[in-house]
Amino acid sequence: MATHPRFVSLEGGEGAGKTTVLAALRTTLAEDGAEVVVTREPGGTPLAERIRELVLDPGGAPAIAEAELLLVFAARVQHVRELIEPALARGAWVLCDRYTDSSYAYQGGGRGLDAARIELLERGFVGLRPGLTLLLDIDVARGRERTRGRDLVPDRIEGERDEFFERVRAAYLARAHAEPGRFRVIDAAPPAEKVAAAAVAALRGWRASA
Amino acid sequence: MATHPRFVSLEGGEGAGKTTVLAALRTTLAEDGAEVVVTREPGGTPLAERIRELVLDPGGAPAIAEAELLLVFAARVQHVRELIEPALARGAWVLCDRYTDSSYAYQGGGRGLDAARIELLERGFVGLRPGLTLLLDIDVARGRERTRGRDLVPDRIEGERDEFFERVRAAYLARAHAEPGRFRVIDAAPPAEKVAAAAVAALRGWRASA
Repeated sequence: MATHPRFVSLEGGEGAGKTTVLAALRTTLAEDGAEVVVTREPGGTPLAERIRELVLDPGGAPAIAEAELLLVFAARVQHVRELIEPALARGAWVLCDRYTDSSYAYQGGGRGLDAARIELLERGFVGLRPGLTLLLDIDVARGRERTRGRDLVPDRIEGERDEFFERVRAAYLARAHAEPGRFRVIDAAPPAEKVAAAAVAALRGWRASA
Repeated sequence: MATHPRFVSLEGGEGAGKTTVLAALRTTLAEDGAEVVVTREPGGTPLAERIRELVLDPGGAPAIAEAELLLVFAARVQHVRELIEPALARGAWVLCDRYTDSSYAYQGGGRGLDAARIELLERGFVGLRPGLTLLLDIDVARGRERTRGRDLVPDRIEGERDEFFERVRAAYLARAHAEPGRFRVIDAAPPAEKVAAAAVAALRGWRASA
């Protein structure tokens, strides 16, 4: 599978502090004057954002696990071809809030779908991996405590139980363990600014070594 | 791949007269008192109908071919697990207006996606084929003439050019040729009642031979 050195993804469970980290990473990447495209999944293009609503809207007719996986990959294919690849082609950095590792973690670990079927979609339809993936890792109970009260209505994923998020976390850590070259695991337990500083240091270290 | 003897699909291009044929087939299947579930793709469940809107709504952000294929399969997986398989399990007939062969014809033949990638989705996520597929075959120009003026605004598929529909027709006929046991090709050029009578005769012949 192709990887791209200017494509960076940020992954992690609920309450890991992705928003603060994203802002810090964007600033760091922009330091040398390059264009930085910050985007998210599911979403990032008008169609993909509509697909996101189908997946997350708790009022909607809920998708079974396989349909959810296919919807997320439909959004991803659109996002990669329409936004990510063109941005990389013109020399920009792309910083993506969640990407394919989220499918392995949430639909794979969380919902129990076989990783081989997810890989079949990744290889057959996406074919692009980030050069660097920063995983913000946090204890499930602590992460959920941070998000408490943030949304009046939890979305379909946020409404899941703790066991679900334990499986998500385990799947993320297993992926990081299997691909140490691409992943950097950041302890997300400290306050947000400390986590952001650790993420920036990891990004700088990766760029220096590349 | 599993096939089910009480699962019948109806396929065909624009203007082939599927609506009239569906009504006649439903009446025939109901003759011996069995429950008959008539459904359609993309669609058939609340979520799948919302996905249908994303695919067909011409005002929406258009999907690239691969995203369209994944959306159609997301709708199909939901439809099969939530409606078709439960109906077959309780002894009903299921009569479906378009099914997986439409993906091979429209996204494969029409949009040029590799059939191997479509089969990967069919085998990996659907795994169910109809026992009988009736293909209403009609000359492209003649079919499109019949639909002219039917819709004020053509949907995304209806808005395609004649060459697209020639490729769709060729893909359908190639599939029918490759699977003569499952397919019956009905000449859809005659008036609708004649086409319906031919479809009913094909259904009766297939049931008698099964």
